Amino acid sequence: MQPPTSPPLRIDGLETPVPLVDLDIVRRNIRRLQDYCDAHHIDLRPHIKTHKLPLLAHEQLRAGAIGITVQKLGEAEVMAQTGISDILLTYNVLGKEKAERLAKLTNFARITVAVDNDKSLDSVAWGAKFAQGPIGVLVEFESGANRQGVQNPEQALQLARLAIKQPNLEFKGLMTFPTTPHTARFLDEALPLFRNAGISVSVISGGGTQSAYVTHQLAPVTEMRAGTYIYNDRTMIAANAAAEEDCALVILATVVSRPSTNRAVIDSGSKTLSSDRLPSGQADGYGLLPDYPEATIALLSEEHGILDISRSVRKPEIGERLRIIPNHVCVVTNLHDHVYLHRSGEVIARLPVYLRGKTV
Amino acid sequence: MQPPTSPPLRIDGLETPVPLVDLDIVRRNIRRLQDYCDAHHIDLRPHIKTHKLPLLAHEQLRAGAIGITVQKLGEAEVMAQTGISDILLTYNVLGKEKAERLAKLTNFARITVAVDNDKSLDSVAWGAKFAQGPIGVLVEFESGANRQGVQNPEQALQLARLAIKQPNLEFKGLMTFPTTPHTARFLDEALPLFRNAGISVSVISGGGTQSAYVTHQLAPVTEMRAGTYIYNDRTMIAANAAAEEDCALVILATVVSRPSTNRAVIDSGSKTLSSDRLPSGQADGYGLLPDYPEATIALLSEEHGILDISRSVRKPEIGERLRIIPNHVCVVTNLHDHVYLHRSGEVIARLPVYLRGKTV
Repeated sequence: MQPPTSPPLRIDGLETPVPLVDLDIVRRNIRRLQDYCDAHHIDLRPHIKTHKLPLLAHEQLRAGAIGITVQKLGEAEVMAQTGISDILLTYNVLGKEKAERLAKLTNFARITVAVDNDKSLDSVAWGAKFAQGPIGVLVEFESGANRQGVQNPEQALQLARLAIKQPNLEFKGLMTFPTTPHTARFLDEALPLFRNAGISVSVISGGGTQSAYVTHQLAPVTEMRAGTYIYNDRTMIAANAAAEEDCALVILATVVSRPSTNRAVIDSGSKTLSSDRLPSGQADGYGLLPDYPEATIALLSEEHGILDISRSVRKPEIGERLRIIPNHVCVVTNLHDHVYLHRSGEVIARLPVYLRGKTV
Repeated sequence: MQPPTSPPLRIDGLETPVPLVDLDIVRRNIRRLQDYCDAHHIDLRPHIKTHKLPLLAHEQLRAGAIGITVQKLGEAEVMAQTGISDILLTYNVLGKEKAERLAKLTNFARITVAVDNDKSLDSVAWGAKFAQGPIGVLVEFESGANRQGVQNPEQALQLARLAIKQPNLEFKGLMTFPTTPHTARFLDEALPLFRNAGISVSVISGGGTQSAYVTHQLAPVTEMRAGTYIYNDRTMIAANAAAEEDCALVILATVVSRPSTNRAVIDSGSKTLSSDRLPSGQADGYGLLPDYPEATIALLSEEHGILDISRSVRKPEIGERLRIIPNHVCVVTNLHDHVYLHRSGEVIARLPVYLRGKTV
């Protein structure tokens, strides 16, 4: 006799709002970018800011990734403690406390850190005295994102020279975000400069999902850091970097009010979807509604999403459930304590988002 | 002999980015609105979405509040479990699972719920059968926010009649957000309608910090639900509802890069500050910098804040710390696992944000 069993939990049985992750799409997305990187002899070092899950980082490594990318020490700590042994921190470390935390990570993993200024390099060098072996260093340069990074090859060379002087640091190469035509122009100038100085640049690390599949045409990077490709989102659809069926994470929401003919209210506001918009000139609203493609999520307050359903012939009813593809999936996973992993609608795990909120 | 002691921890000793809450400002803000409400015989029922902390909810109650307001069952559960005994849930409850959770709360607290449609009322009525005494019901009406609520007094009366028919529900009155001149116009029509129907409206619940101190001039509400007033933020400053010195929560950030003369990068991006903007036409950027009033937080990525410091004569250096008054403080507290409570810079508690992420 079989023991009595409950039927498997389906995603329809979950309370909303809830983030659902389709494992089959995840695996397909992992496989596709890894195959591209393999074909072009580019090392893949996924950025885990998108999923924030040790489980999926290990899936990426098993598929062929050489290590992972993180931006915060708190993220590196959780990943090291869950068995990840090669971590790149693409963030300026400053101060003794953070430098000590960086050094402690070397007990568990090979650690590389990116810097764009000498104060950060000083902190890293100070911490490296307490490390189990040398800490790798990449110099970050700017490639047109107007964010950070040294502004010209001479500054990169100067920082590299400072790194090389430190006994506990190992200068490894250059890093930028994202990979653009500007990246190639910078490298065209920088690489001869380093060659003439007798400094080996063994790693050139570029990044970004939007240009991931044309990386080989853009710049001679040896390593790619991409994050969003594992889930994809509305921003990637708008950039032609993904299709709707490549979006692995959706928010399942419920219609809680229908105040008027052309307005529906869902239980997903900015605390569920974030307030991130698409770049101006691209699609409006706070997410894509695959079940109601004519509708827009016109307004958000913290717990309410206001749908403009004026162009929808079939209009959603109170109690009905809708799927939402978020505008920017990385900030969405930062809002939720758990995601539900499913295959074809059957829930297979409730995963704590262990790296959520690791801002320090 | 005195036992050896460490010096008290100061906020300057905390790693960044970190949210700091000034308890003296909090208490002053609590006192001021309570005094206003007392003077105008309005019951104050603070919305806890701003602080998300049982400790501060109890401070609000001790100052004279009659109970609290929440939007999600998960928030109500934590508050009930930490000793709060009068809770208003201003959100449509739908489905058996949520209705059961609502009913269970009546073991610990007096519960009132707002509804704007009959399906939600059906759910609440079903759950109320399992409750320890009647569940209070308010009918939500719309006051010009284009969010939700019934659209006219006739609909409100109809829902009230349905509520009255249910043996385990107690119809208490009307609720809206925010309190506006439209609120008064709605009530001018609705109250005679209810009076003629012989239905007592004992509660008229309005809300919102922006108009809090002119509530008595706007509409005859008996109860005020305000949340942001306890911390205030840049939105409230822009609306002339608060001054800089009334802002109790600031993010302490560190400058991590100075790529060029007019650009500084801080370690606080959208994962720390959120992407919430001020309404268009008001101030630009992602937060106020009291230490650099000429600078703007021009761009955010998840972990980087890009400062335009072109108009600043004194320019921040790498490693320097800055304070930021967030655009919208309620979503900021949702991003952080802890806030640090201090008095005059001395840290007195690291408070877990127990209600963070309670979206269900």
